[in-house]
Amino acid sequence: MPPWIEYSACAVCAISGVLAAEGKRMDLFGALVLALVTAVGGGTIRDLCLGVRPVFWIQTPDFVSTALVAAVVTFVVARFGDIPNRALAIADAFGLALFAIIGTEKALLLGSPGLVAVLMGIVTGVAGGILRDVLRSEIPWVLRAEVELYATAAGMGATTFVLLRQWFPPSESHRYIGMGV
Amino acid sequence: MPPWIEYSACAVCAISGVLAAEGKRMDLFGALVLALVTAVGGGTIRDLCLGVRPVFWIQTPDFVSTALVAAVVTFVVARFGDIPNRALAIADAFGLALFAIIGTEKALLLGSPGLVAVLMGIVTGVAGGILRDVLRSEIPWVLRAEVELYATAAGMGATTFVLLRQWFPPSESHRYIGMGV
Amino acid sequence: MPPWIEYSACAVCAISGVLAAEGKRMDLFGALVLALVTAVGGGTIRDLCLGVRPVFWIQTPDFVSTALVAAVVTFVVARFGDIPNRALAIADAFGLALFAIIGTEKALLLGSPGLVAVLMGIVTGVAGGILRDVLRSEIPWVLRAEVELYATAAGMGATTFVLLRQWFPPSESHRYIGMGV
Repeated sequence: MPPWIEYSACAVCAISGVLAAEGKRMDLFGALVLALVTAVGGGTIRDLCLGVRPVFWIQTPDFVSTALVAAVVTFVVARFGDIPNRALAIADAFGLALFAIIGTEKALLLGSPGLVAVLMGIVTGVAGGILRDVLRSEIPWVLRAEVELYATAAGMGATTFVLLRQWFPPSESHRYIGMGV
Repeated sequence: MPPWIEYSACAVCAISGVLAAEGKRMDLFGALVLALVTAVGGGTIRDLCLGVRPVFWIQTPDFVSTALVAAVVTFVVARFGDIPNRALAIADAFGLALFAIIGTEKALLLGSPGLVAVLMGIVTGVAGGILRDVLRSEIPWVLRAEVELYATAAGMGATTFVLLRQWFPPSESHRYIGMGV
Repeated sequence: MPPWIEYSACAVCAISGVLAAEGKRMDLFGALVLALVTAVGGGTIRDLCLGVRPVFWIQTPDFVSTALVAAVVTFVVARFGDIPNRALAIADAFGLALFAIIGTEKALLLGSPGLVAVLMGIVTGVAGGILRDVLRSEIPWVLRAEVELYATAAGMGATTFVLLRQWFPPSESHRYIGMGV
């Protein structure tokens, strides 16, 4: 997978983290923490569980820089313009889709069996957003009944990926982006 | 310790996770996440801290399957029947007792000193439930004043176990199950 | 750095954890968990990310004993006397300053680049308090807009430290302690 896709996933997650800080009376530091947690949280938990060390963003600090730049730009834009509510959902869906595939692939490369690889894909996809919502003191968005199809799509994508071991069908990812409320 | 005990502990924790999702407007995915977190969360933190890698449920994915099956069955049963409120407390207490002993034993096998082994027992016992409650956006049940004797019993059990290095006296575990509200 | 400084940072964080348990209807066990999490949480996440294993408090259980003793003493004192509200802020600021430097130094010793070392310093400094507030089901104090300068000072301290690779200027730490609400 070309590296720019992983950086893009990182950036969109960072954006979703900054947008999630809105309305929580957080300052720039709080927004940056939410951005970083959303961007690298899922991959960190994946690497810790798989026993990869140090975790990926210590091996490749460029992910941290990418997330920080995306976060600062979003923070400034959000001050001046008005970012629609849908933007958070769409950014989340993109990040989830990309990270689910990345996580599944990494687990397969390390020789994990299929069930573990699918789990790792889901963890990489959703854990960042879950940590973000925990830090906002809210029930994680992805666990709520309204967004049922969202995580299911990620799981199906990861399962498909394990079965096919080939590129995630783009039609799939488009489908659940549309489903984000 | 016979392996079926560890699987049972996993299953009861998964059940408590599903029951905890009730009333939080979560879907099946949310309930499964709570179930898995409760079932393998404590052991995961224990393995990460002790430096065991990969963590136990990647080495033995059967734990994940067991937890998932127990969770789905509970989810279906809870839809039709009515699970009494006490069930959550009792499932929690059983899981806590079993995991506390398992965690203490694992730390001792890895050569940890007594204090660390007792801590690891407590972590293995309570961390899963704490993570579950954090994801529900509630103050963890086990930290609240009303359930004081619950964790104390686990700590005493782990300490006793370190001292005796033998099987946890069943009378102990029975006692604090009764104390669960 | 002389070891007593690290033990002091551990103790003040444990004190802040116990003070944070006030008003949350927690018992001694809950207060001890908050104390330990605040005291060793940041360093644990740092060690996990850097791939140090086992984590520092398993290598040196004296940190755990120190935190537990400080926590029990604070718990008893808080029952009888009246600890001013400012105490929590000041204990937090001290712990943050000391841990930020310790974390930065540890990352540099392991050969991390500057950006990662600064991040590790911030993580070591603030993650314990963040975990403490998550367990209390509150938005972490350090992320809120009112305390903006607090974390910024830690980041600046860590950056300064990386640049100078020498002892954190005491004037810096004094400045933001005064800024704590």
